[in-house]
Amino acid sequence: MMKAKIDDVAKLAGVSKTTVSRVMNKRGYLSDKTVKKVHDAMNELNYHPNVVARQLFKQETKLVGLIFPTVNNPFFGQLVSSMEKKLFSKGFKVLIGDSMNDPDKEKLYLQELMTHQVDGLIVGAHNHGIEEYKNTNLPIVAIDRIMNKDIPVVSSDNYLGGQLATQLLIDNGARIIVHTNDPQNIKSPAQKRRSAYEDTMIHNGLDPIVYTLEFDSNSDKKIDSIKRIFKENPNIDGLFVSNDMDAAQVMDVAKDLGYRIPEDLKVVGYDGADITRILLPSLTTVVQPIDKMADVAVSTLVARMQDVSYSSNKILPVKIWRGKTV
Amino acid sequence: MMKAKIDDVAKLAGVSKTTVSRVMNKRGYLSDKTVKKVHDAMNELNYHPNVVARQLFKQETKLVGLIFPTVNNPFFGQLVSSMEKKLFSKGFKVLIGDSMNDPDKEKLYLQELMTHQVDGLIVGAHNHGIEEYKNTNLPIVAIDRIMNKDIPVVSSDNYLGGQLATQLLIDNGARIIVHTNDPQNIKSPAQKRRSAYEDTMIHNGLDPIVYTLEFDSNSDKKIDSIKRIFKENPNIDGLFVSNDMDAAQVMDVAKDLGYRIPEDLKVVGYDGADITRILLPSLTTVVQPIDKMADVAVSTLVARMQDVSYSSNKILPVKIWRGKTV
Repeated sequence: MMKAKIDDVAKLAGVSKTTVSRVMNKRGYLSDKTVKKVHDAMNELNYHPNVVARQLFKQETKLVGLIFPTVNNPFFGQLVSSMEKKLFSKGFKVLIGDSMNDPDKEKLYLQELMTHQVDGLIVGAHNHGIEEYKNTNLPIVAIDRIMNKDIPVVSSDNYLGGQLATQLLIDNGARIIVHTNDPQNIKSPAQKRRSAYEDTMIHNGLDPIVYTLEFDSNSDKKIDSIKRIFKENPNIDGLFVSNDMDAAQVMDVAKDLGYRIPEDLKVVGYDGADITRILLPSLTTVVQPIDKMADVAVSTLVARMQDVSYSSNKILPVKIWRGKTV
Repeated sequence: MMKAKIDDVAKLAGVSKTTVSRVMNKRGYLSDKTVKKVHDAMNELNYHPNVVARQLFKQETKLVGLIFPTVNNPFFGQLVSSMEKKLFSKGFKVLIGDSMNDPDKEKLYLQELMTHQVDGLIVGAHNHGIEEYKNTNLPIVAIDRIMNKDIPVVSSDNYLGGQLATQLLIDNGARIIVHTNDPQNIKSPAQKRRSAYEDTMIHNGLDPIVYTLEFDSNSDKKIDSIKRIFKENPNIDGLFVSNDMDAAQVMDVAKDLGYRIPEDLKVVGYDGADITRILLPSLTTVVQPIDKMADVAVSTLVARMQDVSYSSNKILPVKIWRGKTV
């Protein structure tokens, strides 16, 4: 089948090419009748206006780039899926980049997305100190990540989440409570979960014990790190794990070592994504409002694009899901 | 900061604009010295050649569209993530569309992606009979989905998977074995899991019992459908569920009804995605080679783009993961 051209549309609609172009770009005065004639002709010919050509003229691409560690994760998968739906409903298509927490890869993505002339970016990768973000006039919104003072951050209430999780463990009798978190060089609001844990432990006269688990899950290295927690803390009776995937792995190791959950060991996770709630409903966890975070990030980005005012930082509430692990 | 223009690059490099353009598009004779001067000037000025303008000339966008039901799912999340990595390494960026099994949304995505002039498409959505796929010269590859005879399909060995799962249940003593699957109007190679189940049951002198579960998980409607299975089959002792997310929900309902797994009820799932293996390692399931499927789909697409020969249909092997549910 030959691809229809603008000439064909003009001919069929009985108008000039200029008129077709004005209808496509919504420019100048056009009668409803003319608009309808042109649209009918476009439909009949299955004509797809060439966005590539149009955008040179309009200076917008209707593309938004999303840079996140990976969609192969319950939290980020839901976040990206939710943002994509929201952006689609506002007329944007989504370019994704899985940065896998590799600063070089993230830098490359950023450069490539800028080359593709995206209209905006939403970033939730975990790397810090990428200079390129400063050298762009592109509207950017960050999720759960502090970038620089000009970039608004959407996050949920990580401090409250850390407080609720730790207090829940203490209220249920745990005393030797270990917290696991990302490496501290990652500048994320999620580090507030750690501060909240430490503050709550000290407030209750208990000693904070923090271990670092790298993001890259499923590795033998992670399993070794988890085993070390149990070896170094033989009397451990509680664990506040900073994400649910790690919590699942921690519980797996604990069961292998003979711990009964929650009798011997109480566990609270973090994130509460839909997939996790279906595959591991027994896990007690702090639920982030993921779909709401996606909504707010998209609205903030669109406001930035349109130079409408927006609140620079937005912190959304969290809640506890009571499973059976506490 | 003012955005650098091609004029600035030409001035700094001490060459003409035409030369800069020839360097960018790798056209005509250019000395190494000239190429280096231009690249140095581009780097110094942080100049991003405008792909939008370039692609009008080169007729390629280096964009590949992925249309899948959702990335918020362990199987599709891993598949999309894996394809994105592979495509990125080959110089392509990825546009995603979550069609949520809505034929109208899928049609719209397809139109929009064609408008954005993607270089190719990989499709794994579940809808059938979308005419638009026929009206395009775009290179397309399908995953686990039969579209039309011109479009190559990558899948894993669904018939073998169904056989292995059913035989495993029978070998471990189950006799009243129910199979759940997608609605039959979905033209997916995954329907072969159903045929294999039916053949294996009959071959063993047992009666096949098949129930349909809609893809849209997490809904009360799905829970009701699952409850009906147990109500209508009070002596049920085995379940072969066609995806792991459904298997998790089926087991949750079963436990609430007082079934002990695997003592009273043996369950085999399907997919074996990384996330599922971490969150629900106890589930015995048929593991699809997801990363390998992603690799083959990308290689096939690239071969189609370059008019290199490729095998039209590719079926990859599966294996059983022995958890604790059989």
